[in-house]
Amino acid sequence: MTDYAVIGDWGTSRLRLFRVENGVVAARRDGPGIGAVGRAAEGAFVETIAPWLEQGAPESITLCGMVGARDGWVEAPYADCPADAAAWRKAAVRFDWRGVPLAIMAGLACEGADGIPDVMRGEETQIFGAIDRDPALGQGRHLIVLPGTHNKWSLVEDGRIVAFRTVPTGELFALLRDHSTLSPKVEATDATEEAAGFAEGLEKAGVGKLSQSLFAARAMRLRAGRSADWALGYLSGLLIGCEVAEVRSSLGEDADVLLIGDKRLSARYAQALEAQGVGSTAIDGDACALAGLGYFGDVTA
Amino acid sequence: MTDYAVIGDWGTSRLRLFRVENGVVAARRDGPGIGAVGRAAEGAFVETIAPWLEQGAPESITLCGMVGARDGWVEAPYADCPADAAAWRKAAVRFDWRGVPLAIMAGLACEGADGIPDVMRGEETQIFGAIDRDPALGQGRHLIVLPGTHNKWSLVEDGRIVAFRTVPTGELFALLRDHSTLSPKVEATDATEEAAGFAEGLEKAGVGKLSQSLFAARAMRLRAGRSADWALGYLSGLLIGCEVAEVRSSLGEDADVLLIGDKRLSARYAQALEAQGVGSTAIDGDACALAGLGYFGDVTA
Repeated sequence: MTDYAVIGDWGTSRLRLFRVENGVVAARRDGPGIGAVGRAAEGAFVETIAPWLEQGAPESITLCGMVGARDGWVEAPYADCPADAAAWRKAAVRFDWRGVPLAIMAGLACEGADGIPDVMRGEETQIFGAIDRDPALGQGRHLIVLPGTHNKWSLVEDGRIVAFRTVPTGELFALLRDHSTLSPKVEATDATEEAAGFAEGLEKAGVGKLSQSLFAARAMRLRAGRSADWALGYLSGLLIGCEVAEVRSSLGEDADVLLIGDKRLSARYAQALEAQGVGSTAIDGDACALAGLGYFGDVTA
Repeated sequence: MTDYAVIGDWGTSRLRLFRVENGVVAARRDGPGIGAVGRAAEGAFVETIAPWLEQGAPESITLCGMVGARDGWVEAPYADCPADAAAWRKAAVRFDWRGVPLAIMAGLACEGADGIPDVMRGEETQIFGAIDRDPALGQGRHLIVLPGTHNKWSLVEDGRIVAFRTVPTGELFALLRDHSTLSPKVEATDATEEAAGFAEGLEKAGVGKLSQSLFAARAMRLRAGRSADWALGYLSGLLIGCEVAEVRSSLGEDADVLLIGDKRLSARYAQALEAQGVGSTAIDGDACALAGLGYFGDVTA
C-alpha cells in the first residue's frame, strides 16, 4: 500500500480528483459536477473515489470549487478581498472525514466601486496557483482573466487579489446559440465561416455596442448573405469583444492580460484582446488549480 | 349583407383581423401568429376569417407584418430607407384572392452608419399610422421607439423614416428569465420587490455597463439579501436602461421619445428614459397599426 494524498477541483459541471503519490500525480478520476449532485455530494464523492479507498485511505483530501457552496457538500466561507494566499488558505473549512483530514478551500468575495458585490469559488485557487508557479506574478499589478461560463476578471496587486468581476459571457452566448431567434444553428459545421463571423463580431464590438449590434446576427443573414455558421461566430466575437472592451474600460486597466483556462477559449480571448491592442499570455487552468492546492508537478495522469 | 373591408396585423406571434363596416370597426377576430403557421398561412387565414366569409366576400383585404416575410404567406418586398408613406405603400404586393383584392404591405430595410443592415415588418405600418394620426409628427425630427421582443428605434425626419435599429432586448430578457442561472424565477409574485429591482437595474445601467452588471442579479441575492423577484426586476431594468443609454448615445439623438406599443412595456421604457433625463409620450400600437392601414376610427370592436 502506497501513501497518497487526494486533491481535487469540484466545480458546477465536473469533479476532477488527482491522486498524488511521492509528489507525482499517479492517477485521475472524474465525477459529476456539484450542479448535478448538490446535497448528495458526499455519495457522489464516495462513488468517484471508491477504487482508491479500496487500496487504503489517503493521508489527506483537499478540494476547491463549488463543493464549498451553500448547496454543495459542506459550506466554506468566502475570504474578503483584498486577500493574499495565506488569508485565503486560513479560511478553508477543515473536518475529519472517515478518519482522513479533509479541507474544502474558501471562495472569495469582493465589492466593486459601483457597489456590486461579487463571488468566486474555484477560480481563486487557480489564481493563487498561478502566482505560486510564477513569482513574477506576485509582484506589481496584473490583470488575470479566467474565461468560462462565468468569466472572472481579477486584479492582482503584489500577490493579493484586490478586486474581481464576474461576466457571464459564456452563459449568454449559450443562451443565444441554443434558444434565440438570432442563431438558427447550435453548432458550427463550417469552421472558416465561423471564424469569419468571429472576426466580424470583434470588429463590431466596443464599449456600449452590445445592444445595437446583436440583431446583426440575424439581419446580416437576411440582407447581406451571411450564413448560419457565420452568425454563430459573429455572436461569439461580438460578446467577447464587448466584454473585453467594457470591463477593461471600467477597470481603467491597460496592462497585458494573463489568461488561465481552456486552450480554445483562451485563444478566442487572446484574439479579442489583440484586436483591441492588448497583449496576453495563456496558461493551463488544471496546472494552476493543482498548484493552488499545493501540487507543482506534471498534471498528466 | 353589409359591405365591409378587412384590415389586419399579422405578426410572428398573432393575427389580428378587423372588420370595417361604414368606416367603423364592427368586429375583430384573432388567429395564430405567422411564427406558428409559416407556409400554411393561407389555411390559417381562411379558418380565422371563415365566419365573415360566410356572410359574403369583403371588398378588400389589407395585411401588414410578418405575413409578408419570406417564410410567410406571400413575400412582400422591403422598401429602402429613407422612405415616406407613399413609397412604402407603393411597394406592397397586391394580388387577387378568391376574387378579392388583397394587399400585403411592404417591410422596410436600412443600413446603419456602422455598416449593419436592418429590417422591419409591421412596425413601419404603426409609425406611418402614427404620422397620419398626428400631422406634427410629419415635420421635424422624431425618435420613435416600438418596444417589444425586437424593439425598433426609428428616426423620422419630415415624415420619412430615415434610419432604424433593432434591439432584441425583449428576447434577451426572456432568455435570461427562462433559461439562465441569473434568475431563479420566471415570474414575479411580489410586485414591490420586482419594482425595486427594476429601479436598481436602471441605476446600474449605462453605456457599456451591460457585461459587468449582469451577474449582479445573482451576486446581490447571494451577498446582499436581494430576492428572486428583485432579480427579475433588476434584469429588466438593467437591460432596458443599457439599451436606452447605448442606442441614444449611438444615434446622437437627444430629442424626446414617442413610444408606440403595449401600455405596460411602454411605461417601463418611459421610466428608463426619465431616469436618463429624457421625456416621452406613449400611444397605442393597435390604433397606429390600423391608421397605417387606412383606418382612423375607434379600435375597440
